[in-house]
Amino acid sequence: MRTISWSEVNGGSIHLLDQTKLPGTIGELVIRDPKELVGAIQRLSVRGAPALGVTGALGVALILRNAEAENWSKESIAKSILELKNARPTAVNLAWGVSQVEPLIEGGSKKVLEKALALADDDANSCREMGRIGADFLVNKLGEKKLRILTHCNTGALASTEWGTALGVVRELHSRGLIEEVFTDETRPLLQGSRLTAWELAQAGIPYRILPDGAAASALFSGLIDAVLIGADRIAKNGDSANKIGSLSVAVAADQVAVPFLVVAPESTVDRSIDSGDRVEIEFRSDSEVTSFAGVNTAPVGSKTYNPAFDVTPARYITAVITDKRVYRVKEGEAL
Amino acid sequence: MRTISWSEVNGGSIHLLDQTKLPGTIGELVIRDPKELVGAIQRLSVRGAPALGVTGALGVALILRNAEAENWSKESIAKSILELKNARPTAVNLAWGVSQVEPLIEGGSKKVLEKALALADDDANSCREMGRIGADFLVNKLGEKKLRILTHCNTGALASTEWGTALGVVRELHSRGLIEEVFTDETRPLLQGSRLTAWELAQAGIPYRILPDGAAASALFSGLIDAVLIGADRIAKNGDSANKIGSLSVAVAADQVAVPFLVVAPESTVDRSIDSGDRVEIEFRSDSEVTSFAGVNTAPVGSKTYNPAFDVTPARYITAVITDKRVYRVKEGEAL
Repeated sequence: MRTISWSEVNGGSIHLLDQTKLPGTIGELVIRDPKELVGAIQRLSVRGAPALGVTGALGVALILRNAEAENWSKESIAKSILELKNARPTAVNLAWGVSQVEPLIEGGSKKVLEKALALADDDANSCREMGRIGADFLVNKLGEKKLRILTHCNTGALASTEWGTALGVVRELHSRGLIEEVFTDETRPLLQGSRLTAWELAQAGIPYRILPDGAAASALFSGLIDAVLIGADRIAKNGDSANKIGSLSVAVAADQVAVPFLVVAPESTVDRSIDSGDRVEIEFRSDSEVTSFAGVNTAPVGSKTYNPAFDVTPARYITAVITDKRVYRVKEGEAL
Repeated sequence: MRTISWSEVNGGSIHLLDQTKLPGTIGELVIRDPKELVGAIQRLSVRGAPALGVTGALGVALILRNAEAENWSKESIAKSILELKNARPTAVNLAWGVSQVEPLIEGGSKKVLEKALALADDDANSCREMGRIGADFLVNKLGEKKLRILTHCNTGALASTEWGTALGVVRELHSRGLIEEVFTDETRPLLQGSRLTAWELAQAGIPYRILPDGAAASALFSGLIDAVLIGADRIAKNGDSANKIGSLSVAVAADQVAVPFLVVAPESTVDRSIDSGDRVEIEFRSDSEVTSFAGVNTAPVGSKTYNPAFDVTPARYITAVITDKRVYRVKEGEAL
């Protein structure tokens, strides 16, 4: 399942599986206008670290196609690229994807598009590699037995171009017959766990249960979980990892009961320019994400919220970071 | 604000503020049939440890009124009382409320009703007392300054007959000018925090913010919280406390950053017949609470869930249990 692709129809467009509509509707967005792409990123129609990387690179190709057709000035191109790069502040992969193709901009949209499509293929391959490395790590650590895995948010094919990061490890384990059950946190406020991860698991025929985020500690303390697998949006040099809000809570509980807590993300998610997670800028999102659902108010009108999109899990709670290159045992003090 | 009352209209009925309809609708249930009362308890139209205690006692009066009017057999009365007592397995207060009036059953509905109404008054007084004891404890510990309090679920007037337990401490602090802001977890799956606690805080003019349950660890680790105040549905002799699912998660995070975590509940919540929380039976609730909202599916159709109503926070994470009698410093090993 490819969730992001390029089509040459009508002068070039990006096709995205619209994640805000799942699981009710499997709908595709066809995007020709770079401003529409920024909107789709901000609404989370496309989300997930690797998916945003590929989207960033394809977005530059889309900008250049528009620029070539309409004879944009260099300033207009630069401004449009900057808007794309800054569409979401915490996700390092979006800017990373843009930066991968920036040196090719002088060569025009064709060169940029070639590179962006190569990045999509690289992402698919790197997810398979992370899956193998992560599965081997868990089998070494816990033995060759069926595992009960807890995960948070969505780190599957929908978060990458295909296969997934943390969920890629689950898919790999499943292909080896080593998954008993996946516990997927519903992941408030936007329910990526119940809407997206559950949908992917159902499609793949992997047994799962959905739990409220607050129930993860109960599952861990009740001995129902063998390992936790999550993704990351940015990883500092020391291993501190920014990921979907609620990850820290799971990490702290897993640590208390000595259940392995693994962060699975491609090397492109590692930001070696920051020594620790203290320097990660956290995106705050709108009150309405928390105070209403499906058009129904869930709180008194006018309520304020505390609604950060991400939290930072300190390295001391992370058993290991799994990338497409290797395992980093950050809890033991290994830097990236 | 009294949330549970008795009326003599039409041969006697219990009036409940229907908590499932808030904050959209302020509606009252008028209940004459004991089976309806069991249904209302199971749907959580009335909930909260002290409120359930009073409801249990008033429920016995309602059963006897029906029995007297329709000449029920002793067996029918006993069966109806047992159904009421077992309407929810984890909440010890419901059975406690019933047991308080059971010795008076031979004396008829009048005696039982008198006792039940006295229990309602006792509850209101004990909440005020808990408020004072809890506020004094925090002022002693943290100094006479405006506090930022995190709370979970609803422990206010809606959870008791008036004033509240953990939220009673907040009300007392507010009356002393010592509340800066309350962070209220939305409390999935039934959103008692955003629907009920936020509504009570708004009514009382206390500043608040609502947060997804998964964001509590972020708020704690970011230094935004001075103390956590929660209620309890059952407290074991060693201080282990069963409370709304998600409480454990907050307790573990608060412990990591040395923020005081207080459980506030009347002595009637303490179950000295159990040495530790291991023996608390946990109620599991339906999948649909997690997989749909306001008639909209939030997960693939047929998804299974892990949906316990409560979790048990071990005493080692609880700074103190505050009752209407005194402070128990359970983290330091003090038993109840």
